[in-house]
Amino acid sequence: MRLHQMQDSGNCYKVRLTLAHLGQTAELIEVDILTGPSRTDEFLDRLNLNGRVPVLEVDDSTALPESNAILWFLAEGTRLVPEDKLARARVLQWMFFDQYSHEPYIATVRFWKHILDDAEGFARQIEERTPGGCAALSVMDRHLSQNRFFVGDFTIADIALYAYTHVAGEGGFDLQGYPSVRLWLADVAEQTGHIDMEARSW
Amino acid sequence: MRLHQMQDSGNCYKVRLTLAHLGQTAELIEVDILTGPSRTDEFLDRLNLNGRVPVLEVDDSTALPESNAILWFLAEGTRLVPEDKLARARVLQWMFFDQYSHEPYIATVRFWKHILDDAEGFARQIEERTPGGCAALSVMDRHLSQNRFFVGDFTIADIALYAYTHVAGEGGFDLQGYPSVRLWLADVAEQTGHIDMEARSW
Repeated sequence: MRLHQMQDSGNCYKVRLTLAHLGQTAELIEVDILTGPSRTDEFLDRLNLNGRVPVLEVDDSTALPESNAILWFLAEGTRLVPEDKLARARVLQWMFFDQYSHEPYIATVRFWKHILDDAEGFARQIEERTPGGCAALSVMDRHLSQNRFFVGDFTIADIALYAYTHVAGEGGFDLQGYPSVRLWLADVAEQTGHIDMEARSW
Repeated sequence: MRLHQMQDSGNCYKVRLTLAHLGQTAELIEVDILTGPSRTDEFLDRLNLNGRVPVLEVDDSTALPESNAILWFLAEGTRLVPEDKLARARVLQWMFFDQYSHEPYIATVRFWKHILDDAEGFARQIEERTPGGCAALSVMDRHLSQNRFFVGDFTIADIALYAYTHVAGEGGFDLQGYPSVRLWLADVAEQTGHIDMEARSW
């Protein structure tokens, strides 16, 4: 398999982290979305009409975009996705929460501050998006105050939400006020099979 | 089952549409998110910490939020979710596309213009969000120019994307430029079991 990705993107890290937990590997192909190759016709036609990474090339004729769909594809049938019908829906519940209520705030503010390094140029947008990130962290903290992981045992819901939460500080989000989130972050990082965001092999 | 919902929300309509296709019913409980009851402690604690609708109460002790997770819960194991592993991931791919690349633009602009009826007050936001909606429609049109439905036969991916696309005009999006999307909309509306957004019983 080939993973078209950006090493510093949480959405791409979550795919590597899932692969590592499952003892699987993929060739990593770095795509610099800042300079635009993900918008070439070749990328759009062959890999993802929506022009985003990550994209997992399962084989030469099969390319799967959308980070959380990739996680489901890799992990369905393994210990990282529960078998119970309601628990499966809960895993998806938190993965949709990740993409709708968490990523557009925490990852986006981090992108402007940390990746583009332009907090001044994006000051208005950062001010608009920061409260949504705090709201997402509050929801997580409240849930995690009564649950060790998001759904029963460790699942891809934890992996999906860990990816950008563990670097939320790079977007200026202070995790001191979210003690249950911090305990959960430490717990996830201690799971057997864990790799750091920087790791390119495992 | 009880569905806490807003009749005019596409995210809630997609749950009713899925129920109708599956010959299932639920008691509809109207929640006016504009006046705030979804932010009461009772709603947050018992139904959804994230304070949004739809929420499906499966029974007195089980509440499931996130529209597309509800669709998966209702439809897994039926003809509306394929059995093949890759096809299942593709259904999720388009449902994550719906929540990340489509809803925050098309549904949000429609919300300001049609639900709040305040195009003037939200002029800057509408201008910022409209191009993203057009981009989502282009991706859909390109895919549908070569595929009758999003993934093989009619699935919950079509239901998820139909919900806000069929009222995109209420957000000022002109579908004339997206002929394959228009054919697909007509095709979805002709499926046996279809109900309109206004329907409260089926």
